[in-house]
Amino acid sequence: MLTPFAAMNAVGTVAFGVAGASKGVDADLDYLGVTVLGVVTALGGGITRDLLVGRVPSALTAETDVLLALAGVGLAIALVRAERGRIADSPLLTIPDAVGLAAFTATGAIVGVEAGLSPFGVVVCATLTGVGGGAIRDVLAQEVPFILHEDFYATCAIAGGTVFWALWTVDIAPPGPTVACVVVALGLRLVGMRRGWSLPTVR
Amino acid sequence: MLTPFAAMNAVGTVAFGVAGASKGVDADLDYLGVTVLGVVTALGGGITRDLLVGRVPSALTAETDVLLALAGVGLAIALVRAERGRIADSPLLTIPDAVGLAAFTATGAIVGVEAGLSPFGVVVCATLTGVGGGAIRDVLAQEVPFILHEDFYATCAIAGGTVFWALWTVDIAPPGPTVACVVVALGLRLVGMRRGWSLPTVR
Amino acid sequence: MLTPFAAMNAVGTVAFGVAGASKGVDADLDYLGVTVLGVVTALGGGITRDLLVGRVPSALTAETDVLLALAGVGLAIALVRAERGRIADSPLLTIPDAVGLAAFTATGAIVGVEAGLSPFGVVVCATLTGVGGGAIRDVLAQEVPFILHEDFYATCAIAGGTVFWALWTVDIAPPGPTVACVVVALGLRLVGMRRGWSLPTVR
Repeated sequence: MLTPFAAMNAVGTVAFGVAGASKGVDADLDYLGVTVLGVVTALGGGITRDLLVGRVPSALTAETDVLLALAGVGLAIALVRAERGRIADSPLLTIPDAVGLAAFTATGAIVGVEAGLSPFGVVVCATLTGVGGGAIRDVLAQEVPFILHEDFYATCAIAGGTVFWALWTVDIAPPGPTVACVVVALGLRLVGMRRGWSLPTVR
Repeated sequence: MLTPFAAMNAVGTVAFGVAGASKGVDADLDYLGVTVLGVVTALGGGITRDLLVGRVPSALTAETDVLLALAGVGLAIALVRAERGRIADSPLLTIPDAVGLAAFTATGAIVGVEAGLSPFGVVVCATLTGVGGGAIRDVLAQEVPFILHEDFYATCAIAGGTVFWALWTVDIAPPGPTVACVVVALGLRLVGMRRGWSLPTVR
Repeated sequence: MLTPFAAMNAVGTVAFGVAGASKGVDADLDYLGVTVLGVVTALGGGITRDLLVGRVPSALTAETDVLLALAGVGLAIALVRAERGRIADSPLLTIPDAVGLAAFTATGAIVGVEAGLSPFGVVVCATLTGVGGGAIRDVLAQEVPFILHEDFYATCAIAGGTVFWALWTVDIAPPGPTVACVVVALGLRLVGMRRGWSLPTVR
């Protein structure tokens, strides 16, 4: 049975696969390099999450996630061939990417509370799950990770993880905390993109 | 009860938070980027250590470490606003940073012997704990990690870890190995900075 | 007793130590930086493998691997002093490196099936074990990881891991899958280097 949550997670994995692969295409990598960047972006956050709490990464024990990531890579290649332009800024990519950010943040928060992490640990685990794949991709592609300069990306994950923890702590029944986390992270991301929100620099 | 060791560890966490955040300020990152760099620098070494020996990172299950790292970030921002200059080379930073290097090296060595690592494993675990946070920070900030070119930084951690292992192997009672590790690592670092010691290059 | 497999693994560890250290020499690092790059390259893939399946890295609990890595570093320094040129493209390096790639890919596949990973998980684990050390080395040295642009390197590991999994799944008795994995990965690498095989780019 495909739960709404699994559906969002699937959309996110595909979207992150597309985002990673499209960055590889823009960098003129060969098919393997493009595939590696796509798979790393789609699976990197979840693998980081599982390692942090001492689990064997589910991306390596189940088959679905890798297939979805590869589907994202294939989709990116098809889009590039059809459009012949940069696809990184297309709503075709940014909206599913926002869904993925929100869904992954929620899975990180769920795994974090199940593992008995502290409040800070839950928020860190949620944030790393949401943004980790993209950060690894940027390090491999030799760019300063977008989470360090893209305003209102990691912020959305931090807010979503915090809301999840707060509701879970006051015993809101599932799937209440998960839904709230996704709504907050996704809403902040979509509104932030539309309005061009940014955080101030220190000087 | 605050043991001398916990006190040193706290000083080190704050100092590493300051060091990481100040690098983010120097790179004109926004508040979130500065905070991420500070927290990663302060917690990265300990998280690496715990992952290596199969523990859930204590930084995610306890609250103290994250609070101390955030205190370091706040302190860095306050220092930057007061001084309006680069703070990376100020003794305000380099001396606590040396204390952190020594304290973290000792925690890595302790965890390593408790996990039954080989002599080399203990030294590697001690060194990665001491220098890992800064190395992750440099990779994120797109710099060649300082441990690869800053002379007499990783060297101090390697020496401290080796001394710890040697004393622990000949059954010196605690806290003997810990104290010796801290004294050696901290002493080498402070003397090396003052005298400008460096290692020769291969050619 | 030194099995053929352990012998190949030893050759690979030394070769990867040489490859990492020689990159450090080419980048004018000091002795410590050269040693760190060599050891990271030699041990990074295996440590990644063990972390993925929840083991304490064998590189930290046994002594052999670190000694072999250090032997590789020493050998690289001796070669540099003797030749006074770049050694990265010498057959002295590329052939043992190919042996290491094949041997490490096989150890990753073995650990993967023992840990009950999915087919994809086995291939990912085998590939990361084969290429992980070099990828970490390139990130530390601030280069785009060679696996993203060096054609027919990761490809050989993926092919070897896939063959291992296929033969293991149809119950071929050991060491059948291991031998086939090594032959496929090593053969593809050596032939690919000689003939200059490459994969097409997406556009």
